[in-house]
Amino acid sequence: MTSHPTALISSKAKIGKNVTIGAYSIIHDNVEIGENTTIGPYCELGVTNHLSEGKKLIIGANSHIRSRCTFYEGSKFGEKLITGHSVTVREKTNAGNNFQIGTLSDIQGHCTIGDYVRTHSNVHIGQHSSIGSFVWIFPYVVLTNDPHPPSEIMQGVTIMDFAVIATMSVILPGATISEGVFIGAQSCVGGKTEADSFYAGSPAKKIGPTSKIKLKDGTGNPAYPWRTHFKRGYPAEIVEQWNKSQF
Amino acid sequence: MTSHPTALISSKAKIGKNVTIGAYSIIHDNVEIGENTTIGPYCELGVTNHLSEGKKLIIGANSHIRSRCTFYEGSKFGEKLITGHSVTVREKTNAGNNFQIGTLSDIQGHCTIGDYVRTHSNVHIGQHSSIGSFVWIFPYVVLTNDPHPPSEIMQGVTIMDFAVIATMSVILPGATISEGVFIGAQSCVGGKTEADSFYAGSPAKKIGPTSKIKLKDGTGNPAYPWRTHFKRGYPAEIVEQWNKSQF
Amino acid sequence: MTSHPTALISSKAKIGKNVTIGAYSIIHDNVEIGENTTIGPYCELGVTNHLSEGKKLIIGANSHIRSRCTFYEGSKFGEKLITGHSVTVREKTNAGNNFQIGTLSDIQGHCTIGDYVRTHSNVHIGQHSSIGSFVWIFPYVVLTNDPHPPSEIMQGVTIMDFAVIATMSVILPGATISEGVFIGAQSCVGGKTEADSFYAGSPAKKIGPTSKIKLKDGTGNPAYPWRTHFKRGYPAEIVEQWNKSQF
Repeated sequence: MTSHPTALISSKAKIGKNVTIGAYSIIHDNVEIGENTTIGPYCELGVTNHLSEGKKLIIGANSHIRSRCTFYEGSKFGEKLITGHSVTVREKTNAGNNFQIGTLSDIQGHCTIGDYVRTHSNVHIGQHSSIGSFVWIFPYVVLTNDPHPPSEIMQGVTIMDFAVIATMSVILPGATISEGVFIGAQSCVGGKTEADSFYAGSPAKKIGPTSKIKLKDGTGNPAYPWRTHFKRGYPAEIVEQWNKSQF
Repeated sequence: MTSHPTALISSKAKIGKNVTIGAYSIIHDNVEIGENTTIGPYCELGVTNHLSEGKKLIIGANSHIRSRCTFYEGSKFGEKLITGHSVTVREKTNAGNNFQIGTLSDIQGHCTIGDYVRTHSNVHIGQHSSIGSFVWIFPYVVLTNDPHPPSEIMQGVTIMDFAVIATMSVILPGATISEGVFIGAQSCVGGKTEADSFYAGSPAKKIGPTSKIKLKDGTGNPAYPWRTHFKRGYPAEIVEQWNKSQF
Repeated sequence: MTSHPTALISSKAKIGKNVTIGAYSIIHDNVEIGENTTIGPYCELGVTNHLSEGKKLIIGANSHIRSRCTFYEGSKFGEKLITGHSVTVREKTNAGNNFQIGTLSDIQGHCTIGDYVRTHSNVHIGQHSSIGSFVWIFPYVVLTNDPHPPSEIMQGVTIMDFAVIATMSVILPGATISEGVFIGAQSCVGGKTEADSFYAGSPAKKIGPTSKIKLKDGTGNPAYPWRTHFKRGYPAEIVEQWNKSQF
């Protein structure tokens, strides 16, 4: 471990090989950090909280947590977590591998997140959200959970594999964003959605199949499913599988 | 007082009994913190500013300010202030007891806030806002003030008791959100509103009385006024009073 | 230079006369700060990044960077930069003089910004944005760039001189906000816009010329162009020029 002399690191924390910890960061007792991970300055990992029920914060190997992030104990992340700056993650967040969270995003905890999920800046993931794999969420999107706030009834949203939610959209309590759905910017979506369909508006309506959205690269090819043309950052074996698929 | 050795605390600050101050926090001269209050790490309290006119920052007893908060001098909070992380509060914010402010919220100052007000994450409270008691404001709500920006004319909004503003809504300059009003998600509300009514849309329209919104708990009871069913965190004497009321 | 003893300042950074650096701030190697500049606490300037191509972070003279800001190397700001708190600025941001950035704003880099641009809190400036001079952007506005996310096609937005974008609006990829345009709150704007026109709605439509919006000061004068009545913070020679203009 290489840690800046100003970092405050609990001797009870379990820290893997080749971990780097930046200036003024705080690592509390109940933390386990996988090898080759970089933690930027001003991070606080393992904030104690009675809702965590004493469970550890587990950060997978080969991760990069940028500066000013706050992670509570009681959450678990797979390998290659990458964050922007000033991210807040509450307890009982259970995420897979290769999760990328944008700057200022706020994960309220008590949620599950699959593999290769990417959020851009300033995304709000409400409690009880269930997010699949290969999901994209763009800036200022809010995933809600209370159908008539304030209440004790929590209806988290479900976002299925390969779905894309464009900027400034609200996903209403209990909504299901099906596989491959594209939600246009500044939409407000409730209820169920049909797979591989494009929704927009407030309230959102179905506009049509996502395949009708054309790539603005002069080819006239469909822009969705996006994995037909966008492969940056995904491992070769996954890209190969996508290349072999019929869409 | 228990303060972390890295905390920078002015000897001129007036700090009550049993106050705890976290690592790397900064407490400036012109600050008064009530007893039994907890200040998390990386907080800066009492930022000087000529608009504060030399007035103190006063934090009531039994408060909990979480990490990374920035409070200017010249604001006053009653007892039991509770904040999320990375909250910014400018001068001349005057709030009552039991104010809860969510993570990343931004209070621009020059505003008044009653008792038991709760904001969720990332709420923007513009200058000259006037907020009653028992108000709820959900993520990414913006309270505005300038009818034709940029200008020198400030028309702050008024939010009355028991009103609820759902996520991603904009309250336009000079608007009045009356007692018990519910504003649906992603609405844009101007002008006056009728008490205990439900508004939604952009521009928002009156949908009907809030009592027509039914609780999704199988009872078919009305969801509003919310204090008929939601009582978590309010003191026994207030709940008793609500229980005796006819709605 | 006056720096707090806890500030971590690289001896390779080039720091002008009368610069003040706050507690717990970090100044990396590849940074040049102009004279008379104030850097608040918890700032990190000159974050290294391979996309910066080794270029410096240059902050002009007489600037004020408030607490908790993160600036990458490879960006350049003219004189009198003023920031709120917790601002993030990525590499290859090239801004003129007198830029004011609000609290929590997030500049994604790879963008150009003119003189006297002012953003309020929590503004998101996407990569490849091109912003003129004397532009105003209000809270929670997002400037986008990807017409069918995720993709490799970037169509940054263009915001021309004197344009005003009100709170919670989305500017769609490739859109041009022409000179003097006013975008109403919570709008979603794509395509081209006509100079000195007022647009609102989602999707936004042209409502009319901005001159039809009247100042709410009892005079009945037009509110736009705003420089006919709003002059606070601009230097005398610019105001004099505005006063001589026919609108």
